[in-house]
Amino acid sequence: MTTSTPLSDLSPDQLAERLTTLRADYADLQGKGLKLDLTRGKPGSDQLDLSEGLLRLPTTHLDRSGTDVRNYGGLEGLAEMREIFADLLGVDVDRVIAGGNSSLSMMYQVVTWLLSHGGPDSPRPWSKEETVTFVCPVPGYDRHFTMLADLGIEMVTVPMHDDGPDVPSVRALVADDPSVKGMWLVPTYANPTGAVTSAEVAAELMAMPTAAPDFRILWDNAYAVHHLTEVETKSADALALASASGHPNRPVVFASTSKITFAGAGVAAMACSPENKEWFLKRLSFAAIGPDKVNQLRHVEFFGDADGVRAHMRRHRDLIAPKFAAVQDALRSRLDGLGVATWSEPVGGYFVDLNVLDGTAARVVRLAKEAGIALTPAGSAFPHGNDPDDRNIRLAPTFPSLADVEAAMAGVAVCVELAAVEKLSAT
Amino acid sequence: MTTSTPLSDLSPDQLAERLTTLRADYADLQGKGLKLDLTRGKPGSDQLDLSEGLLRLPTTHLDRSGTDVRNYGGLEGLAEMREIFADLLGVDVDRVIAGGNSSLSMMYQVVTWLLSHGGPDSPRPWSKEETVTFVCPVPGYDRHFTMLADLGIEMVTVPMHDDGPDVPSVRALVADDPSVKGMWLVPTYANPTGAVTSAEVAAELMAMPTAAPDFRILWDNAYAVHHLTEVETKSADALALASASGHPNRPVVFASTSKITFAGAGVAAMACSPENKEWFLKRLSFAAIGPDKVNQLRHVEFFGDADGVRAHMRRHRDLIAPKFAAVQDALRSRLDGLGVATWSEPVGGYFVDLNVLDGTAARVVRLAKEAGIALTPAGSAFPHGNDPDDRNIRLAPTFPSLADVEAAMAGVAVCVELAAVEKLSAT
Repeated sequence: MTTSTPLSDLSPDQLAERLTTLRADYADLQGKGLKLDLTRGKPGSDQLDLSEGLLRLPTTHLDRSGTDVRNYGGLEGLAEMREIFADLLGVDVDRVIAGGNSSLSMMYQVVTWLLSHGGPDSPRPWSKEETVTFVCPVPGYDRHFTMLADLGIEMVTVPMHDDGPDVPSVRALVADDPSVKGMWLVPTYANPTGAVTSAEVAAELMAMPTAAPDFRILWDNAYAVHHLTEVETKSADALALASASGHPNRPVVFASTSKITFAGAGVAAMACSPENKEWFLKRLSFAAIGPDKVNQLRHVEFFGDADGVRAHMRRHRDLIAPKFAAVQDALRSRLDGLGVATWSEPVGGYFVDLNVLDGTAARVVRLAKEAGIALTPAGSAFPHGNDPDDRNIRLAPTFPSLADVEAAMAGVAVCVELAAVEKLSAT
Repeated sequence: MTTSTPLSDLSPDQLAERLTTLRADYADLQGKGLKLDLTRGKPGSDQLDLSEGLLRLPTTHLDRSGTDVRNYGGLEGLAEMREIFADLLGVDVDRVIAGGNSSLSMMYQVVTWLLSHGGPDSPRPWSKEETVTFVCPVPGYDRHFTMLADLGIEMVTVPMHDDGPDVPSVRALVADDPSVKGMWLVPTYANPTGAVTSAEVAAELMAMPTAAPDFRILWDNAYAVHHLTEVETKSADALALASASGHPNRPVVFASTSKITFAGAGVAAMACSPENKEWFLKRLSFAAIGPDKVNQLRHVEFFGDADGVRAHMRRHRDLIAPKFAAVQDALRSRLDGLGVATWSEPVGGYFVDLNVLDGTAARVVRLAKEAGIALTPAGSAFPHGNDPDDRNIRLAPTFPSLADVEAAMAGVAVCVELAAVEKLSAT
């Protein structure tokens, strides 16, 4: 049951009546005994099935150059794997390193080596600075923030807009303070907002003056090819923009096939300036014996080339776009016009970003939990889990079945409205 | 051509005559235009072929518990993979973590996290100490030493005997100096000497008093099941010995299938106390999305159980034991009785450790190189590549063919004798 009157326009009596109705709706919801989960930004098993052919590959143990991929070595990764990533990321293959099964691990290596050794352009190891601070567009990816927290790095937030981070805020933070050393960014189909950083914003971020000579933008392009519509947005070319503005070492680009093939058994990659690459491979030479080249060759055979990846991503799109549509339908059908929630309508990526009435996000998550619907903890898209407005909730619709997404989202919408009416009734 | 007279007993004239003969032998050697390589401790392609069946596995994407191994998660690794390692290492499965493709990377993580965060029993992160020092049995594994050097950790050496490190030397170093925080050890078929640390030595190392409350022995059991004879030596049980003596957190055990299946695409593991394990998994949760569980399941299906691994290792033995025998034959046939070289006769592992006349190791390596035979750089088995006696050379016979090992080692023997006679003639 919906209404198009903003809830804040309701009289106390109308609110009380609405509360009664919603409590009945919520009791019905609890009565269903749901056990649903919208927390996990991971592929569904039908998506994983698209890559089942990997389990019978590779058909040879020799790469294109005749190297035996079964043996040690090759820190940089297979040339043919690097070529596929270079094509997908729109960068020169010489800039690319193909790694193991986790781009998060490559990010962690970059950050920890900046701390322990400093970058090629660092006055000293970052760990020798009094403090190290990162600029964090919010809402953002929780694992970016927990990594920094664990490594003792401070975080300051800036708003994330539809075309990327708020540039004036970023400029102000980095211009004079040399302890501001870095910034996270998911440039395409951001986690969780779905925002795509425009070429203009990217150019400003790469060109802006920074007090730190070794400022880094960790450009986590996890969803570069994860389109939900036929409009296949192209990511800004961070490396070219940075080189053109005289800051070639600023961006470090990350990507992986985790949400292309197998989430836990894909291939990760990074791309960066020649100087950063030499620095990374030097450090890596003390820490590793080379990536799993068999798995890289497995992926190369499976895809053939970057167009093979693109075709494969359209099959993912066909599976998950209906789930994203179901999220939109459920939110619209109950919440449109009520003035208590806004949400993203992403054209790519893995999440829908829901903003509920200020001060009710934690309540919505608790209500949902008590109705058998697991949501990501409120605030998790903010450093230290602290959403100052208590309004942000990340929805992850890929893993459950379509029917489960529909059931869960109908329930979530009830919880959002109920929490809002509770709040409005109390004030 | 051999003689059983020690070269040091030869008169100047006899030495001069011998030098002439050897120079002719060496010229012949150079004339052969060899291009051989004894540097690399890596499996030959015939050994890798033993595991080619992996390329068609796994046949399912579900582990024993029904978890989809293709997706994210499972930092600890698959239970069935951990069971195989537990059996091979003789430890409780609860102690084991199965990881990615590199035990070296797990060692690196342990050392760097001790530096950045300290262990569960550390007064503070190791990086906050004035200096951190490791005890390094020599000759040892070059990658252990280069890792520490890159991380700014000091190294002090102790002799490696046939039954393990020299315990009185170790005791003296660790007893009073709290900056001595750790020690490397390859307990079984050590790299490069082939020594097997006895249960008695292991017990002393685990029980000895240390000034550092968080002293660690990095127990790199890379060759635990890599027997070259039918005597399948059992490794000392580091974890049990350490627990029994009240130092459960002291040892961290590492192993991998790198020299069992595919060197670059195997599965690594570590085993440690519950407290260390909790500590490691906590750190890892910020740095990784879980190991490649598909590759773990691939290995589980391939082997079935630990006995499957043991049977597989006997097939490796059949392939490489003749190469080790060829090394012995070549050294004996030219150098026996000359008093200018000693060498190990390993019953497992991947190396033969050759000690030449003091002050001639670098010369031998150069002579070999100029005859087309690549040897590991002299001194590489010592911290900072510094062999104070310039006598140690590590021979790695597994990768070349048997015929190449024979040809290379015949040449090496010429170089050893030539360098010795040059040296004796000059003094």
